[in-house]
Amino acid sequence: MSVPPHFPWPAPGTSLSDIITPMAVIDEDRLSANIARTQSYMNAHGLAFRPHIKSHKIPDIAHQQTAAGAVGLNCQKISEAEVFADAGFTDILITYNILGPVRLARLAVLHARVATLRVVADSAVTVAGLAATFTDPVRPLGVLVECDTGAARCGVQTPAAAVALAQSIAAHPGLRCDGLLTYPPVGGAVAVEAFLQDAMARMADLGLPCPVRSNGGSPDLFSAHLVPSATEHRAGTYVYNDRAMLRAGACGPDDLAMQVLTTVVSRPTADRMVLDAGSKALTSDLLGFADHGLIPALPGARIVTLSEEHGVVDLTGCTGPLPQVGDQIAVVPNHTCVVSNLCDRMVFHRGGRVTRVLAVAARGTVW
Amino acid sequence: MSVPPHFPWPAPGTSLSDIITPMAVIDEDRLSANIARTQSYMNAHGLAFRPHIKSHKIPDIAHQQTAAGAVGLNCQKISEAEVFADAGFTDILITYNILGPVRLARLAVLHARVATLRVVADSAVTVAGLAATFTDPVRPLGVLVECDTGAARCGVQTPAAAVALAQSIAAHPGLRCDGLLTYPPVGGAVAVEAFLQDAMARMADLGLPCPVRSNGGSPDLFSAHLVPSATEHRAGTYVYNDRAMLRAGACGPDDLAMQVLTTVVSRPTADRMVLDAGSKALTSDLLGFADHGLIPALPGARIVTLSEEHGVVDLTGCTGPLPQVGDQIAVVPNHTCVVSNLCDRMVFHRGGRVTRVLAVAARGTVW
Repeated sequence: MSVPPHFPWPAPGTSLSDIITPMAVIDEDRLSANIARTQSYMNAHGLAFRPHIKSHKIPDIAHQQTAAGAVGLNCQKISEAEVFADAGFTDILITYNILGPVRLARLAVLHARVATLRVVADSAVTVAGLAATFTDPVRPLGVLVECDTGAARCGVQTPAAAVALAQSIAAHPGLRCDGLLTYPPVGGAVAVEAFLQDAMARMADLGLPCPVRSNGGSPDLFSAHLVPSATEHRAGTYVYNDRAMLRAGACGPDDLAMQVLTTVVSRPTADRMVLDAGSKALTSDLLGFADHGLIPALPGARIVTLSEEHGVVDLTGCTGPLPQVGDQIAVVPNHTCVVSNLCDRMVFHRGGRVTRVLAVAARGTVW
Repeated sequence: MSVPPHFPWPAPGTSLSDIITPMAVIDEDRLSANIARTQSYMNAHGLAFRPHIKSHKIPDIAHQQTAAGAVGLNCQKISEAEVFADAGFTDILITYNILGPVRLARLAVLHARVATLRVVADSAVTVAGLAATFTDPVRPLGVLVECDTGAARCGVQTPAAAVALAQSIAAHPGLRCDGLLTYPPVGGAVAVEAFLQDAMARMADLGLPCPVRSNGGSPDLFSAHLVPSATEHRAGTYVYNDRAMLRAGACGPDDLAMQVLTTVVSRPTADRMVLDAGSKALTSDLLGFADHGLIPALPGARIVTLSEEHGVVDLTGCTGPLPQVGDQIAVVPNHTCVVSNLCDRMVFHRGGRVTRVLAVAARGTVW
């Protein structure tokens, strides 16, 4: 007998109340407003804006971002950048130390077909690999020095170390040191500005150009102007927003473009509800929260535990009528970027009706 | 120019030291030993064994499990079951409340092509939906009553409620109540046995058959015989094992079949190392741990934070030589099942060489 397709994606026009759950959905109007508001802020402060595609992983959304005025894209891995190069993007920054022969060979192919490709480096090992791969002084690879301004992830630790690495990059004819990059901690504007000013002064003393000073982060997005030495800002989450952005004050409830639609599959006790969305739909990312998402329609409800396919909700804090088995419940995830990575396709809607279903083309790109 | 494929899966024979990272890999010998040891234990105790496919999501591995003696498969969602029905499996239990017209229609199609298909129910709403869909007394759908024996997820709360639901199932000619099912908390054997005995006695008094008593769980796998009233046991994680299974004493270090291979991409400070594996490779599942995986080769190292593509490792607890940028580091994940769900394909190896690369066919199946 005929077998139905495993994944019944909803056709345009389908009512959200009729789609199968769990399903992440994006509000078109909120998406457009988030893109416009952020670009407008960057324009007002003379900052170039480079959205990080990790949050959506969808070329059509990146086209909306560049159409609004973004100067180019930020990718984290080569495999992500390949997807967006395939989609025709010509200015891509990969904010990652690219290491090893396989990755370097792929980076060379990418460089040959992307007009403006840049990477970062924070060590002599990374620079040595890049220098051995890129040797053409006519078309050098742009490299930014990654600086740790307090986030305690990657990056050189001091302005002096940044300048030393910049010098070593500039010494290779196939590389071009384009400047400095950082991914600061939330509230790190003062530290970033101090680091950049110090490093820029040292580079100027040495006659080293530093045209790009790239700052980043979503929770602090609308404080980007507090780092006047930055020339561009990178952010991703703003495009959909999430519970962590709401907590940070970086968006309001009406800016939450992503919801994960779920169904109540069990009401075992008076104060317990079980949703059909677990860690495979919401992820286990807590981002400092004690529970696994926000249920706007049910104040006081707490998603206390996730297994892979179940979300257990404690209803003891709720007043008023409680959901029953079969009801649809919308959840705002703690972190939208990781939810995107779980979705083969993303469903968009306006006014409660599906508008388009797009492949999450760069899902699963970890290399 | 020609574009390389985005995902350079390693060919059989490739050395693990040459594959691109991050990459989850499975040790063939440990996999086979895990399957054999568990089946042997179940055989010795006269328990039918029904592996949960969520841990691997790969039909070829399920064939290894049934070839070893498993009676059938356990799936959690219809979309998972469809993948394994496509692969020819004829005995599938879906341990989920199936609700709503789309899912029920798909369940009907599945029932028509799978010789032995069963689902669970824990509410009158679920039973009503099943009863409205399945009306053929010649080939009724098998239903187990899901019982909450302390795990506080889904399930009826008391033996009396289980029996009442069993009666309501048996009253529909298109449904057949096949018995009871539970997913207990760790250490729950006494509570499970008491619940089953009570419910079975009540069902016997009413003349209700209860041929299947299905118990489950991986951390307690080798205590399954402590529930003598159970007829079968369900478990998934044992096939690969993980850090949580090791902590539970359900496996030893030599039974850890899955490792996530990573590369050191940054050494920003003397006591900090950054891996190219973040939450997109390891997931954020903590399962009670305070950090994000085990590094067997580096005692004292702690993966303290994950962003999507970076794992930050605190080396302050380490003695001896420390890894450098470019070194390969193997990580045992906290929870293998969720790692499988992030992988488009799984790479298997023996003696350090790739043996096969299999599609994770049921990855992403949340419906």
